[in-house]
Amino acid sequence: MKIIVDAFGGDNAPLEVLKGCERAVKELGVKIILTGSSSKIKECAAHNGISLNDIEIEHTDDVFDIHEEPKEIIKSGKNTSMAVGLQLLGDGKGDAFVSAGSTGALVMGATFIVKRIKGIKRIAPSPVMPADKGGFILTDAGANTECRPEMLVQFAVMGSAYMEKVMGIENPKVGLLNIGAEDTKGRDLEIETYKLLEKSGLNFIGNIEARDIPKGECQVVVTDGFTGNIALKLYEGMGSFFGKKLKWIFSGAGKIGALFSLGKINKLKAQMDYRETGGSALLGVRKPVIKAHGSSDAKAFFNAVRQAKKCVEGDVVGVIESYVSDMAETVKE
Amino acid sequence: MKIIVDAFGGDNAPLEVLKGCERAVKELGVKIILTGSSSKIKECAAHNGISLNDIEIEHTDDVFDIHEEPKEIIKSGKNTSMAVGLQLLGDGKGDAFVSAGSTGALVMGATFIVKRIKGIKRIAPSPVMPADKGGFILTDAGANTECRPEMLVQFAVMGSAYMEKVMGIENPKVGLLNIGAEDTKGRDLEIETYKLLEKSGLNFIGNIEARDIPKGECQVVVTDGFTGNIALKLYEGMGSFFGKKLKWIFSGAGKIGALFSLGKINKLKAQMDYRETGGSALLGVRKPVIKAHGSSDAKAFFNAVRQAKKCVEGDVVGVIESYVSDMAETVKE
Repeated sequence: MKIIVDAFGGDNAPLEVLKGCERAVKELGVKIILTGSSSKIKECAAHNGISLNDIEIEHTDDVFDIHEEPKEIIKSGKNTSMAVGLQLLGDGKGDAFVSAGSTGALVMGATFIVKRIKGIKRIAPSPVMPADKGGFILTDAGANTECRPEMLVQFAVMGSAYMEKVMGIENPKVGLLNIGAEDTKGRDLEIETYKLLEKSGLNFIGNIEARDIPKGECQVVVTDGFTGNIALKLYEGMGSFFGKKLKWIFSGAGKIGALFSLGKINKLKAQMDYRETGGSALLGVRKPVIKAHGSSDAKAFFNAVRQAKKCVEGDVVGVIESYVSDMAETVKE
Repeated sequence: MKIIVDAFGGDNAPLEVLKGCERAVKELGVKIILTGSSSKIKECAAHNGISLNDIEIEHTDDVFDIHEEPKEIIKSGKNTSMAVGLQLLGDGKGDAFVSAGSTGALVMGATFIVKRIKGIKRIAPSPVMPADKGGFILTDAGANTECRPEMLVQFAVMGSAYMEKVMGIENPKVGLLNIGAEDTKGRDLEIETYKLLEKSGLNFIGNIEARDIPKGECQVVVTDGFTGNIALKLYEGMGSFFGKKLKWIFSGAGKIGALFSLGKINKLKAQMDYRETGGSALLGVRKPVIKAHGSSDAKAFFNAVRQAKKCVEGDVVGVIESYVSDMAETVKE
């Protein structure tokens, strides 16, 4: 299996990308194609003693600027490490693509270069997030700010396929993010989506209120990209806030106190560590595309490659395709 | 000053309501009118040794059921402790009203019984929430799921008046909750609201991303009621999740460890305690109405009464009225 990796996406490129890929080659038995400046990659590898065994380089001069308008990925950004990676994927030169670059550009590029699965209306970046009873996928987490009910149903279908095939959750529970439990709650979008999800054949458990998300009551949380992005970032922000508070509590004299709870503190840290799940799957693309977190380190890149591999092995794309054609009759377009 | 209090709202009524009101009479020098079953109130007070000095009772037989449709407050619910309290407020028999009953019913009842401030389009339940650099008001936190830009501008105006007059924050910073910092981000709602806020004369600092909310970077966070409710409940849910985790860390052998950080743990607890701020102000009503949290205890009720008193003293309603008439020219309706 060959995973294409954008060597110049994210805050810690290319060093952490290279370290993550080296480990992935060794431990996962995959081959890697890195996109980006060949000389810089080789220099960085040599300088840090990183092996490039089973790692090819596809040279590109440019890097897509995170502040650039997303649509430029298919215009002025054609020769960037991200666009070239997507093109290689579209051309069948690799099985999946990983990048820690701009989410907007990646969604735009995936849509127009790799293309969507037949019947899928929109691509949804969908991270797996930590929760008390285990992770859940949040879909859409930010791409589609205005949605129609059919789109949310597709997100639910894709999220379910992902949780089943990549995360190994049988018959994952689907919840519609809403402001109350009753089917009359929310905007027209939620009220209509509720009806469609009820007859979707998915394991739909009804509305989920935001306060129940951290409990991990369901494994697929469905919402539009605006609300999803607010939820994602608030989740991250609160996590980081409490992480800092925990550090503060265990500073000074608290350092001694921490010794009494070290096991528990480390367990909580691991549970809330976004690096464990890798990145955000761009559900709906014809080939697996993983958006790694912008601040990814080697461990996060390794896990993103592992996640890409699992997507290929579990044939998430194929499962979504068959779901969509099965559902074409039940859910009106 | 006379504060009307619904004696039968919330999970802990009437005992905790009575305790909170007894303390408010003693410490704040206010008079109270309790609405609800006279015999039950007297019995509860006698049984628990609670003084009813400076507390009048306005007898009502019924209590508004939290599961009832909000609109019933002005129909079948007319003789409930909530509706009667609102009626007394509307009739000028008291200066403010506090209830821990159904938010939906309270918004509906306030709108039709007490009425809105002239020029205000919608009433927005707006809680003050804890953050690292101090609290912020979230407006709208749940009433108006579909909003127009002018409504969000009014929420910003009302939230600013509240933070200034009740919380004592001079020139509070206003942030528009959005999925990115640039003025081109978000839905049409955010893009249009951004333009209006820029020329509003408020201390508008631009968009605020959800991950920055817990830092307390601005004191007024403006959004529609759907997004606001998701943010509010996720904030509460994450807070409760981490509260539980903290308890768990400090259980067992951790109990000893906690001794080394007791001061810090208590400081964090106090900082995140929703009971400190009282409740959610229903901004836009012609007289102050405070929605106390459903799980309020005596301390929370006491603080809700204190908050109501501050609203009266700071003339929040008057300030909003003058803001609105000043702005009528700058912000088109």
